[in-house]
Amino acid sequence: MNAPIPQHLIPEIHQRETPAALIDALKTRFAERCSTALVVREQHGRDESSFAAPPPAAVIFAESTADVADAVKLASQYKVPVIPFGVGSSLEGHLLAVQGGISIDVSRMNRVLSVNAEDLTVTVQPGVTRKQLNEEIKSTGLFFPIDPGADATLGGMSATRASGTNAVRYGTMRENVLALEVVLASGEVIRTGTRAKKSSAGYDLTRLMVGSEGTLGVITEVTVKLYPLPEAISAAICSFPSIEAAVRTTIEVIQVGVPIARVELIDVNTVRMVNAHSKLGLREEPMLLMEFHGTPSSVKEQAELVQELASGHGGQAFEWASTPEERTRLWTARHNAYFAAIQSRPGCRAISTDTCVPISRLADCLLASVAEVDASGIPYFLVGHVGDGNFHFGYLIDPDKPEERETAEDLNHKLVARALSLEGTCTGEHGIGLGKMDFLLSETGDGAVEVMRTIKRALDPKNIMNPGKIFTL
Amino acid sequence: MNAPIPQHLIPEIHQRETPAALIDALKTRFAERCSTALVVREQHGRDESSFAAPPPAAVIFAESTADVADAVKLASQYKVPVIPFGVGSSLEGHLLAVQGGISIDVSRMNRVLSVNAEDLTVTVQPGVTRKQLNEEIKSTGLFFPIDPGADATLGGMSATRASGTNAVRYGTMRENVLALEVVLASGEVIRTGTRAKKSSAGYDLTRLMVGSEGTLGVITEVTVKLYPLPEAISAAICSFPSIEAAVRTTIEVIQVGVPIARVELIDVNTVRMVNAHSKLGLREEPMLLMEFHGTPSSVKEQAELVQELASGHGGQAFEWASTPEERTRLWTARHNAYFAAIQSRPGCRAISTDTCVPISRLADCLLASVAEVDASGIPYFLVGHVGDGNFHFGYLIDPDKPEERETAEDLNHKLVARALSLEGTCTGEHGIGLGKMDFLLSETGDGAVEVMRTIKRALDPKNIMNPGKIFTL
Repeated sequence: MNAPIPQHLIPEIHQRETPAALIDALKTRFAERCSTALVVREQHGRDESSFAAPPPAAVIFAESTADVADAVKLASQYKVPVIPFGVGSSLEGHLLAVQGGISIDVSRMNRVLSVNAEDLTVTVQPGVTRKQLNEEIKSTGLFFPIDPGADATLGGMSATRASGTNAVRYGTMRENVLALEVVLASGEVIRTGTRAKKSSAGYDLTRLMVGSEGTLGVITEVTVKLYPLPEAISAAICSFPSIEAAVRTTIEVIQVGVPIARVELIDVNTVRMVNAHSKLGLREEPMLLMEFHGTPSSVKEQAELVQELASGHGGQAFEWASTPEERTRLWTARHNAYFAAIQSRPGCRAISTDTCVPISRLADCLLASVAEVDASGIPYFLVGHVGDGNFHFGYLIDPDKPEERETAEDLNHKLVARALSLEGTCTGEHGIGLGKMDFLLSETGDGAVEVMRTIKRALDPKNIMNPGKIFTL
Repeated sequence: MNAPIPQHLIPEIHQRETPAALIDALKTRFAERCSTALVVREQHGRDESSFAAPPPAAVIFAESTADVADAVKLASQYKVPVIPFGVGSSLEGHLLAVQGGISIDVSRMNRVLSVNAEDLTVTVQPGVTRKQLNEEIKSTGLFFPIDPGADATLGGMSATRASGTNAVRYGTMRENVLALEVVLASGEVIRTGTRAKKSSAGYDLTRLMVGSEGTLGVITEVTVKLYPLPEAISAAICSFPSIEAAVRTTIEVIQVGVPIARVELIDVNTVRMVNAHSKLGLREEPMLLMEFHGTPSSVKEQAELVQELASGHGGQAFEWASTPEERTRLWTARHNAYFAAIQSRPGCRAISTDTCVPISRLADCLLASVAEVDASGIPYFLVGHVGDGNFHFGYLIDPDKPEERETAEDLNHKLVARALSLEGTCTGEHGIGLGKMDFLLSETGDGAVEVMRTIKRALDPKNIMNPGKIFTL
């Protein structure tokens, strides 16, 4: 059972009414692609967060930009909120109809529109998922590297400025979206950029939309960069005597400029959980999982250098893999961490943190926070995209014990406060959504949030685009 | 002598009056750091563009964020424009007081505030120039790669979303600015981000400000990424039988994923000019200048691969350089191209173009445009950051012959139209400024420009921040 939304996070909890006339108009326009069935609405009224709200009044299954534009125009006419929906993998309550309204499901807009292999770009509809994209472009010898874990849609990944394990080398959606097509609050459709690799042509509307969490428009096309599949890929795992040793190794790897493609931390807790879950027999110590991309000789060179740096910090039990099968086996621990953790405490719910700090502060931030969680008695897992200074605690709480949720929230507050004091951010890749509005204020200050609000009010005067997310108006 | 501003580009040419009371207030606040001397005003009323306008009414020499904030507050009180000024290297009329107002010179705000070598970041005041920055951080083993040619300030480079020769590997200011401090139109000071490498915390105000050309605020601090100085650097020049052969080679280099650090095209015209200017004795054919960064073995590997690709397109006369002195000699042709071109036609003025297209369209765009310029009879030089699809014609016009300027403008119009039809942009790195407003409309459409205007109106209701640039209100 989901917990109720903390009242202080949703000052505009009042659900605006959805007039029957709007539903009628939507049914006329979309016929059976406008659903008011409770089961459909409920499925679109939640995400992977622990928040809950009443479901949207209707769900529109859009199949084209024109569909989205028409739905938004009708909603605008009745001043009713619209909430874009991809596959529902958001972690921060982005998809919840906290002010009522209609959900616009773009998952049927799932065509790859144009692959421009020569330019290393592809344009897709927003419902294309990252796995689908990589499957469809396989024959080009190119790939799309951003991997947030979930098989999210490109539209959703753009809207939350997602990243994941490959970001240390390939960047986030911020660096990889070249242009968007967006339906604005008026229903008007704009393009935010071209396929040129760089541009100084006016305000960077692409990056204004990337990370705007549906509050400024509905993304209906996404042009992203692609990369040549590396000639060689090598993966490695390495155990360390302490988190600090693993983190110090990571810091040195980044500082000397090794173009490492992935470097993920798994703490000893989590190693134990995946050992139990997947029978891996890993050394029960903190571990780094790494991946190197390049030519065979550069991969070898990177790997040797990293091994040397790791050894300097007591890293041992190095294990290497070059074939896809071996790599998959090595990465099992990382891929299964979440499920292993959930199963380690039957019936539990994971509350995920998302702080990101400058890499020189990573050890300080992590070690103090680990000590705090250990002292609290709450079971947890800890994984991190440590090359970027980003890591996630998953507090494994019993949903029937409100005091555990309180403890978890208190731990997260302390963690965020620590990250901010170390010049970091409350969210590296999940977004603000419903739960981090206060953190955003602490992080950027009232002035910067007021700039965001001013932009929102100007571009969405009726406040219909996913209202109640990121900030309150 | 500068040509007058084409009337259609400056619909708001009316210079607003600067009340004597504002000048008095500025003199009271800034004493001798508020100058109304004509020579000072004139120096701040122009840039490297061919536009001209009456100078600003006063120049404030700011020494702190508080100075900037106070100047903006006073200007706001009297609804008078403010125009930020660094070293005056803008190419698009950004610094011209087309609506009157005061110039805020930030060149004395030139301190490197904090070097965070462990995090590969540095925070500087906006008047720090890129050469100064690299000089000051030399001992850290890190460098700031963005090199737009001119020794521009970091504030100015942020405001125009600058890039240059290294962008093919290291990105542009878009990718390299982590956070800004900005004085808004109200005089309020905000920070747009943290030093965390990535973030999903609300709207990306950093990238909204990067490239906003002073129209949304005055940048008073800049945090940028740094990179480890490569262990090895190797440079090469190579001659080709045609521009097409050089461009095809470049396209293949990018497509196979060689992490080349620089790849610059110089056309045969320009080679002749630099031969005459610098007595270089280069083969009079189109030429690529390249640079490779990495470990010694990866540099060797990159270079060998590129040489092989070049040979496939008839590339020859390869010349290599590894020491700094040899590299400087090889790059002489590129560095002196502008001066060599100017001197090739005494008394001429260069009008620079800045289109950028997806790399697969580069040959089409370049070849058709070269044919057009050749047919026009206007002398020109042609250099290009071809790895990014960005290139610059410099039309060398006699400023006393209006028909030559007309021909040059006509050529540029055709070039931009071609670039847009090939999914490119009218400006890769110089910005819109005064001369490209119509191009911006063609490129992004009325709807997107209206979004920009809406943001501008909301954040700067009195229209005092560098008004009359990017778009008309």
